[in-house]
Amino acid sequence: MRYLKFIVLCVLLTWQGYSQSEDEKQIKTIYKTALTQSKSYDWLNYLSNQIGGRLSGSIQAQQAVDYTKAQLDSLGLDRVWLQPVMVPKWVRGTPEFAYVETAPGITTNLPICALGGSVATPLQGVKAGMVEVNGIEELELLGKEKIEGKIVFFNKPMDPTLINTYESYMGCVDQRYAGAKEAAKYGAVGVIVRSLNLRLDDYPHTGSMGYGDTESAQRIPAAAISTNGADFLSTTLKLSPNANFYFKQSCKVYDDVQSYNVIGEIRGSTYPDEIIVVGGHLDSWDLGDGSHDDGAGCVQSMDVLRLLKESGYKPKRTIRVVLFMNEENGLRGGKKYAEVAKSKQENHIVALESDSGGFTPRGFSFDCSEANYGQVKSWGSLFEPYLIHMLIKGHGGADIGPLKDSDMVLAGLRPDSQRYFDHHHSAYDTFEHVNKRELELGAAAMTSLVYLFDTYGVVK
Amino acid sequence: MRYLKFIVLCVLLTWQGYSQSEDEKQIKTIYKTALTQSKSYDWLNYLSNQIGGRLSGSIQAQQAVDYTKAQLDSLGLDRVWLQPVMVPKWVRGTPEFAYVETAPGITTNLPICALGGSVATPLQGVKAGMVEVNGIEELELLGKEKIEGKIVFFNKPMDPTLINTYESYMGCVDQRYAGAKEAAKYGAVGVIVRSLNLRLDDYPHTGSMGYGDTESAQRIPAAAISTNGADFLSTTLKLSPNANFYFKQSCKVYDDVQSYNVIGEIRGSTYPDEIIVVGGHLDSWDLGDGSHDDGAGCVQSMDVLRLLKESGYKPKRTIRVVLFMNEENGLRGGKKYAEVAKSKQENHIVALESDSGGFTPRGFSFDCSEANYGQVKSWGSLFEPYLIHMLIKGHGGADIGPLKDSDMVLAGLRPDSQRYFDHHHSAYDTFEHVNKRELELGAAAMTSLVYLFDTYGVVK
Repeated sequence: MRYLKFIVLCVLLTWQGYSQSEDEKQIKTIYKTALTQSKSYDWLNYLSNQIGGRLSGSIQAQQAVDYTKAQLDSLGLDRVWLQPVMVPKWVRGTPEFAYVETAPGITTNLPICALGGSVATPLQGVKAGMVEVNGIEELELLGKEKIEGKIVFFNKPMDPTLINTYESYMGCVDQRYAGAKEAAKYGAVGVIVRSLNLRLDDYPHTGSMGYGDTESAQRIPAAAISTNGADFLSTTLKLSPNANFYFKQSCKVYDDVQSYNVIGEIRGSTYPDEIIVVGGHLDSWDLGDGSHDDGAGCVQSMDVLRLLKESGYKPKRTIRVVLFMNEENGLRGGKKYAEVAKSKQENHIVALESDSGGFTPRGFSFDCSEANYGQVKSWGSLFEPYLIHMLIKGHGGADIGPLKDSDMVLAGLRPDSQRYFDHHHSAYDTFEHVNKRELELGAAAMTSLVYLFDTYGVVK
Repeated sequence: MRYLKFIVLCVLLTWQGYSQSEDEKQIKTIYKTALTQSKSYDWLNYLSNQIGGRLSGSIQAQQAVDYTKAQLDSLGLDRVWLQPVMVPKWVRGTPEFAYVETAPGITTNLPICALGGSVATPLQGVKAGMVEVNGIEELELLGKEKIEGKIVFFNKPMDPTLINTYESYMGCVDQRYAGAKEAAKYGAVGVIVRSLNLRLDDYPHTGSMGYGDTESAQRIPAAAISTNGADFLSTTLKLSPNANFYFKQSCKVYDDVQSYNVIGEIRGSTYPDEIIVVGGHLDSWDLGDGSHDDGAGCVQSMDVLRLLKESGYKPKRTIRVVLFMNEENGLRGGKKYAEVAKSKQENHIVALESDSGGFTPRGFSFDCSEANYGQVKSWGSLFEPYLIHMLIKGHGGADIGPLKDSDMVLAGLRPDSQRYFDHHHSAYDTFEHVNKRELELGAAAMTSLVYLFDTYGVVK
């Protein structure tokens, strides 16, 4: 009996050793292919510089659908298709304008941009006194008496002491998303929100906001101000508490329009019904060209299928790339994809999203069971030579979130986060800030993870 | 006996637990201070934008000595001083000029720069046919017959498939350093070297080269060409093998001049004779402003002492910052520092260098005994919350190299290396490419490591 166990152990170890070295070999090939023959940087160049910002419902968003579909068509996948989805259409209109006025006629212009989903100001703009708060919590302390008729200036900065900048972001994104809704309850006439940016610069950063069930007539306009602008404004208000703030924006919501998720797949040779999804979102905000958010994630996801093909690997399971539409202001693409998948009773075993910028990959976060997480952790040594050290539990991604069920692994690529919010949702999110190698290393890491899930499946 | 062992174990564990949590607290304070009150970015701004490139022997190098000495003086250290050292003075002269000529009068200008230490061309320049090689090894294959009277074009690119870009650099830096010396043996009249840059762009990257014992009359001029230029030239030579290459440069070596290492220290309260050095090099090449190489390392090193003071920590051992002069083209500062240290029989236990750019820190490399490395590895969990995952064996740094003895720990900060060679030694190494947070995280990681060595000393 003991002898038998020993033999079994030897066989297992040999097999493990063999498969580990097969995995090492395959991952090495994937990285080599990514760093010498990737198309992701060229694709991103086109998306960013030939198309540009791709806000849902815009002509550019449609151009991005057409372009990425054509590129996927050219890869010789087993199937490429468009999945229709209706998306909201919010349009910024003419550039916003704002100033602070410390005495009649003494004004300083400040860089603002409307938050996505905000209503316009009246044609002549809004001009009012201002009250500064350090986050939504302070509205209640001030009360209606001090807020009514004023513009509320939300100036809570991102916490610079947190190492993961997403945690800093989560600590103040509520003032952007819900600031207007909350301030309106106290009679505010507008809100100006400090940009969610850890850097001091002159770019206002947009992003989605919502009015919840606030009635149309009570909805007040909301705009972001650059971090330098916010510091200037705060100082000005300390010196001149009665200063007036003026801003004007002409943004508008139109009826929903037809758009698409772009999907392509390599059908699995052995378990075609087990689907591994990899994706990013094709829409972006309108101020920059959306290179980091999330052009990078789209081209990396497209590259996963291409790199598998180029490196001569034939997937056992179905590998599907999904470029989701409308992550930024509606998540309609992600919801639609999950709805269709469920209605067709498709068996998604893994979904991997890249939506944290095209920076040097540091690892992945996993939203999954302990058993699945244990499986992933066992692959750690395969990733170490590629300086992928973080295989942590955490959020997968917004677009793949609606797919979640208890048996599934949701995963998110985790690139270095230090520079991300410098660019996020602003005119500073442009192609020249993406490094080719860093982008390719992300694609290689994603491809390697997909390869491992394809090879071993997920434990139940 | 067993009972006694148990008690000893309990005491040890309690003490360990206590000291671990003290360390956690102290490191947290260091990071918080670095991310909110660091001076490194302001210092770097001055070095880069008010002083600029600081080539040894230049006025800017002297300005950098004066500025950093004054800044260290203002920190309230126990002692700040200048250590005299004679340095070489090589001057680029008027901007270099080059073209390739495929037929008489049909020329295309190409961006080149003289390699540091190169001789000038004759006043009228050098014009000759060209022979392309993929590294020094190929010279022998071609032989004198094919090389004599020609300009040798060394076009071996950095290997993009290596994850650590320093390895790619090491794989072809010999053609920059020794290409001219080797080609001259075969009668070449000049060398053009592909820039050591993984990116395709238009910046030529300089760097040191040497003639060894080649006689003055046999020394041939050497220049770097941008990566785009190299690709263009290579294609041109394939289409027109008889094309001539012309270049002109007027660089010159002057007599050695007086310069200084800038040094400051906090004297240890308990073991003042045990010295922990932290440093970078104050000189840089002349094309950019030397922000990444190595302004970043200098201001981070200065910040280590400041952050220790600001976070209320009183070192037990002597913590000394050294800003070394002349790393780039002579290493005279590093050699002088070690020479003086040895003549004074100073007991250096640790030297930590930052000379790999101001990017997000990934870890440290250690050149030390197994016992010392074991000690360092035991600190891994203290660094993990700050996303410092690499505590590896490897090179410490060029400037601290001459200090090496068997009992000492030499350490190097290892930032993310993907973008480093985009900037290295070129006009693209400028302040706007350094991210404030990334720079500060490096300073915090260095300060934390110095704190741990100060607290625990080094094992013998």
